[in-house]
Amino acid sequence: MARRRFYHEAGYAIDVGARPTRSPEWEGLLGIYDDDLDRNAANYQPLTPLSYLSRAAQVHPDRTAIVHGALRRSYRDFYARSRALASALTQRGIKRGETVAAMLSNTPAMLEAHHGVPMAGAVLLSINTRLDADIIAFQLDHAEAKVVLVDREFSAVMAEALKKATVSPLVVDYDDPDFPEDAPARKGDPIGEIEYEALVAEGDPEFAWQMPGDEWDAISLNYTSGTTGNPKGVVYHHRGAALMGYANIVAAGMSGHPVYLWTLPMFHCNGWCFPWTLAIQAGTHVCLRWVRAKAMYDAIADHGVTHLCGAPIVMATLINADEGDKRPFEQTVTFNTAAAPPPQSVLAGMSEAGFQVTHLYGLTETYGPAVVNAWKAEWDALDAPARAAQKARQGVRYPALEDLAVMDPDSMEKVPSDGETIGEVMFRGNIVMRGYLKNPDATEEAFRGGWFHSGDLGVMHEDGYIELKDRAKDIIISGGENISSIEVENALYQHPAVATAAVVAKSDDKWGETPLAFVELKPGREVSEEDLIAHCREKLARFKCPKEIRFAEVPKTSTGKIQKYVLRKMVDG
Amino acid sequence: MARRRFYHEAGYAIDVGARPTRSPEWEGLLGIYDDDLDRNAANYQPLTPLSYLSRAAQVHPDRTAIVHGALRRSYRDFYARSRALASALTQRGIKRGETVAAMLSNTPAMLEAHHGVPMAGAVLLSINTRLDADIIAFQLDHAEAKVVLVDREFSAVMAEALKKATVSPLVVDYDDPDFPEDAPARKGDPIGEIEYEALVAEGDPEFAWQMPGDEWDAISLNYTSGTTGNPKGVVYHHRGAALMGYANIVAAGMSGHPVYLWTLPMFHCNGWCFPWTLAIQAGTHVCLRWVRAKAMYDAIADHGVTHLCGAPIVMATLINADEGDKRPFEQTVTFNTAAAPPPQSVLAGMSEAGFQVTHLYGLTETYGPAVVNAWKAEWDALDAPARAAQKARQGVRYPALEDLAVMDPDSMEKVPSDGETIGEVMFRGNIVMRGYLKNPDATEEAFRGGWFHSGDLGVMHEDGYIELKDRAKDIIISGGENISSIEVENALYQHPAVATAAVVAKSDDKWGETPLAFVELKPGREVSEEDLIAHCREKLARFKCPKEIRFAEVPKTSTGKIQKYVLRKMVDG
Repeated sequence: MARRRFYHEAGYAIDVGARPTRSPEWEGLLGIYDDDLDRNAANYQPLTPLSYLSRAAQVHPDRTAIVHGALRRSYRDFYARSRALASALTQRGIKRGETVAAMLSNTPAMLEAHHGVPMAGAVLLSINTRLDADIIAFQLDHAEAKVVLVDREFSAVMAEALKKATVSPLVVDYDDPDFPEDAPARKGDPIGEIEYEALVAEGDPEFAWQMPGDEWDAISLNYTSGTTGNPKGVVYHHRGAALMGYANIVAAGMSGHPVYLWTLPMFHCNGWCFPWTLAIQAGTHVCLRWVRAKAMYDAIADHGVTHLCGAPIVMATLINADEGDKRPFEQTVTFNTAAAPPPQSVLAGMSEAGFQVTHLYGLTETYGPAVVNAWKAEWDALDAPARAAQKARQGVRYPALEDLAVMDPDSMEKVPSDGETIGEVMFRGNIVMRGYLKNPDATEEAFRGGWFHSGDLGVMHEDGYIELKDRAKDIIISGGENISSIEVENALYQHPAVATAAVVAKSDDKWGETPLAFVELKPGREVSEEDLIAHCREKLARFKCPKEIRFAEVPKTSTGKIQKYVLRKMVDG
Repeated sequence: MARRRFYHEAGYAIDVGARPTRSPEWEGLLGIYDDDLDRNAANYQPLTPLSYLSRAAQVHPDRTAIVHGALRRSYRDFYARSRALASALTQRGIKRGETVAAMLSNTPAMLEAHHGVPMAGAVLLSINTRLDADIIAFQLDHAEAKVVLVDREFSAVMAEALKKATVSPLVVDYDDPDFPEDAPARKGDPIGEIEYEALVAEGDPEFAWQMPGDEWDAISLNYTSGTTGNPKGVVYHHRGAALMGYANIVAAGMSGHPVYLWTLPMFHCNGWCFPWTLAIQAGTHVCLRWVRAKAMYDAIADHGVTHLCGAPIVMATLINADEGDKRPFEQTVTFNTAAAPPPQSVLAGMSEAGFQVTHLYGLTETYGPAVVNAWKAEWDALDAPARAAQKARQGVRYPALEDLAVMDPDSMEKVPSDGETIGEVMFRGNIVMRGYLKNPDATEEAFRGGWFHSGDLGVMHEDGYIELKDRAKDIIISGGENISSIEVENALYQHPAVATAAVVAKSDDKWGETPLAFVELKPGREVSEEDLIAHCREKLARFKCPKEIRFAEVPKTSTGKIQKYVLRKMVDG
């Protein structure tokens, strides 16, 4: 594909790409409404979530925007600091369309980065804080990162990644003021040129930040875990991020000034766009560095949390909390869960604990949730197993999604709505990514036929609700994190004794799933389970390593393809 | 201005007009995010409220979309009938960008027209049902109407208008099934070629309606009342109508499935876009042909109404209802009011009656409300007069409005935020009209300097809330001093005998102008001109007090707006 001329030479025209929904009969039809009624400065502004923060600061300057430990930050200050960050980045030479990376926990700095980085015209790359140095280095290089904001917890791995990377970004240390002495992780040494607070102090809190030139401009970049080969960089635009704000409000039933607890990592699909969403209603962010039961109940009871999100493991943590860590609360708390259908026992436990659970589904490519299990009042009358079965279905298209279908990917025909015929789940709409960065082949493949192909298999029920039947086969979801089985297999294959390796998911009460490896050894070679797991830990982030290894013959087809579906049947045997 | 080529000859490019917010330094800056990440069928769809109805019908087919007397219409049927209407219009030759006029009460047909007409690519002209034949004829001709949908209540005036008009549209009679025998108005004879139900029956309920070719395409046309010269035709686009849907939800605090009572005429700014808004949450429309206290209380009690809108006169009707017409209700009911600040006594009465009042402000040119009196919890602690004073301020920009300012229209500088310096209220954002149809001079004038000039005069308070002081033409200039007619009226309203007060300028040899007050007294109350002027002197600076008071009936519009232009004609009479 050719490099696109983004702005017309005359300065004001853009190429808007294919517009497939237009009726061909309308082509060239001009009427009285096509005269003298053009866009102008008074009636057209690019859609961007940055407008939400500026409005919140204007209308509710004194409302608490951020709670983090003892810290309280008003919307006035949140906005001023985001502008100062944008100003400082600009002064240090960051320009439109350049990448600023952040490897940060759910802290005020991460919230400010979501606003301040795009206010400088730059693009925010959020790095999964559990990744290893190789993948981080790949992402920094691929995104051509000019700046890295890094929390002191991750100094060591980032230092290693920077050694491996080709780019030499400005490194900024973030020293979390709420990092307790008895924390479950240690703070590393500073590795940067400047500390985050000093960087913000360089900037002008009244900086005249710029709207994006076009609502199609990139706002953020999120790498997928990469089932085959290198991770793919998913590009979001201002338009989609802005629309997700409204869609989240409608889907999560948020009104008034919601209070949102950060149990979902903000590096996941930009925290499903909630860092931007909350500004629409001037809600309060309650930061949370580590997901622990006591801290969650304290936040709910002390700060009046109304909404939180996370994988089923977060619900399990809430339900299984020590009685001493639980706190009573009066308000209705909505828990939005994704990654795996909530089991009946978890739903019962959550209901008893006073939570209302909404089941969502989506992908990095759809800005997070793009499907919602829209609950119907009549289902309340069902018995518990039937209610759980209804809740387990992924559901219907999100408010801002234009269309959702289950299709045969070859014929691109929709499967019958019979709840049985399996097809590929496909999406189209304004909350589908722009594409994969510097990867036109993957982008073209993902958008083949005018739909985004999720790679997930599912059925369409008679009532229009979809239900997943198989995640993209080789993905293991552990504690809400995607683990590519291929990546784990690749690590195993690097051991000199391994002939064949095949990794599948094993269900796990705590983590949802964990990787289980079937391994064939080379003739005459030996290695113990322990040693092979230790080998993996040198190559992979700890959460990706197999919890169990079985030495067995790996079933293959006549052409040598591993039959994972046979292995899956052997898992619990 | 030149006729704009709407679609590029190659088929896919449009001219997006001026993009004034882009940083000039960014011009021509291309980066990695500008490659191979174009719009396509999977990731870009025009914003349109039509998507909301299709989603509601898919997700909640059995929910009640419309209540009208004994009639209940599900979302499945609402969508099917709207599609059938679009199909029938298309079969009868209606093409993209042509005008379909509707002179309808708040009935199911009017709701269907809001969806079915744009589904045919056409533009809905809603005609104020109180207008006379001359103005209707002007509108039909100016909009080049191809079809007219007319309620039998308005047959006579429409027949007269059609005689005067040059255009010869297809005339469709609507015979409201809920038009009672003892109605306050009579049903006229049919005047059309076909009845509405027969037209809908011609169409295909599974019609493959088309998305707009561009979200900038016109969706509706609303004429301003035109106090001077001919009415101006305000053009709305799909983008603005879609965004107003989300903005209404946020501003009105709607969640779950709201139930909306149609006390606001749908011909006013397309009912502030609520005909489209409700579909986002699959809410229920409760139609109301005539605004009467008993019918309103019955709807609230029987259908669980959560929201309604209207001018202060509707609130007065609710408060002053006969006890026998009132009904108790459990739910919180939000009343969104505009047109005039709600007086303290009305606020007290509404609160006592169980309503929560939100004060909005906007113009036809801003899709209805574009300013909201965002209420702050700390104001609840104020005493009643102070609360009323806070509530009387128009407020802050609506969620989807980009900017709101009070400016000197000559210098285009913002006035100081001192609550005293008067300037013109100006708007910019995606919920500002495209412009005035076939009136480029008026459009250019309205958008001078990149802002929409409202013609309303107001002040900016220190906390960023605006407060109207007058229409530009309602300000009285006496001895070079500006006198706000609203301020004088507020003083008059504080006298216990005053029911209605309206102040206009009277020309004066010495002072240029002086305030002249028209006053209606409450039944059984009396006060002399002298005493009332003396009362004003206690409240106002001497130069602001009326020099003359006339006790007379004050002419109002159907929505309770005082017709000052009528009063002005009476001044020298």
